[in-house]
Amino acid sequence: MTAPALIGAGPACERLTEWRPAEGRDAIVRDLKFRNFAEAFGFMAEIALVAEKMDHHPEWSNVYNRVDILLATHESGGVTERDVRLAEAIDRAAAKGLRP
Amino acid sequence: MTAPALIGAGPACERLTEWRPAEGRDAIVRDLKFRNFAEAFGFMAEIALVAEKMDHHPEWSNVYNRVDILLATHESGGVTERDVRLAEAIDRAAAKGLRP
Amino acid sequence: MTAPALIGAGPACERLTEWRPAEGRDAIVRDLKFRNFAEAFGFMAEIALVAEKMDHHPEWSNVYNRVDILLATHESGGVTERDVRLAEAIDRAAAKGLRP
Amino acid sequence: MTAPALIGAGPACERLTEWRPAEGRDAIVRDLKFRNFAEAFGFMAEIALVAEKMDHHPEWSNVYNRVDILLATHESGGVTERDVRLAEAIDRAAAKGLRP
Repeated sequence: MTAPALIGAGPACERLTEWRPAEGRDAIVRDLKFRNFAEAFGFMAEIALVAEKMDHHPEWSNVYNRVDILLATHESGGVTERDVRLAEAIDRAAAKGLRP
Repeated sequence: MTAPALIGAGPACERLTEWRPAEGRDAIVRDLKFRNFAEAFGFMAEIALVAEKMDHHPEWSNVYNRVDILLATHESGGVTERDVRLAEAIDRAAAKGLRP
Repeated sequence: MTAPALIGAGPACERLTEWRPAEGRDAIVRDLKFRNFAEAFGFMAEIALVAEKMDHHPEWSNVYNRVDILLATHESGGVTERDVRLAEAIDRAAAKGLRP
Repeated sequence: MTAPALIGAGPACERLTEWRPAEGRDAIVRDLKFRNFAEAFGFMAEIALVAEKMDHHPEWSNVYNRVDILLATHESGGVTERDVRLAEAIDRAAAKGLRP
């Protein structure tokens, strides 16, 4: 399987209004804040399943109700359509439970 | 710690419009259908955290996008306020992702 | 995609020493007991990811530290190699945390 | 509820052989590597439940099979017995599934 084609963080973020380019590498990031830890971890579990099925995993960190996510395609050295698809799944799941 | 006071499945279901009394025992049940397995399991993860914090756990089963839940308070022999509180948390979490 | 070939619960259980045929349908079952709810649900999360990646999901129920699992391949009408593979993954994951 | 008494990262790490003091703040850290993402996330789900029950949450990040954890008690401004207890629970859970 060849590595997916690079599209780059800039063009990806034109399509993903909630995401911004990472600093210092070709990747996209989004920071989320939920109402509490239970909602944050429920979101993480849903995305873990989506990611495992896509075989494309996020770099993410969690502290209580916050989840910070960075997406890039390792074997391509930057942002690809695969990241856009995972970002869109994240946006759909996050829309259900973000802190108002 | 004394066991919580029984309120019974009938009175509980008057307050919980989405729940119905179980057959054959004093318990309340609700069957949920999500869009897919990832959403169903994300919901289960959120409720697992809520339940562990309350130290009050559901009897539940899952097949793909379906989650069937039964609540009762073992040491009281039936439905108590503890079940109503867990049911309300389940209703809030489920509202985010049920299949339309 | 054609449905996987039936192998049947009996032959499957000859290869899976911890599993037994279900009653009333061609399926295999295993009942697990963990030390507590946290271990039971951690196991369920690991298996949820394995199942989603295989696109083959268990019928399972949970009460506190117990997890009861039934496997069958719906589109084949019984037990197939797909169930054996998921059962083997379950056995490996369960071996880490069962109650002694 | 008063904040738990500080014990400090140094004394804590004398009791926790797998942990080391964080750089730049009074906290303890451990980096874990599992066999794959499913095992890493199953571990995270178990610890999420333990943490929610203790009402004491980790700062952690995950990339595929790696989970990096930092523990400190926010309201105490550093490492307390609460962190040692959570670290011990993490060590027990991690012992089940680390990559050899």
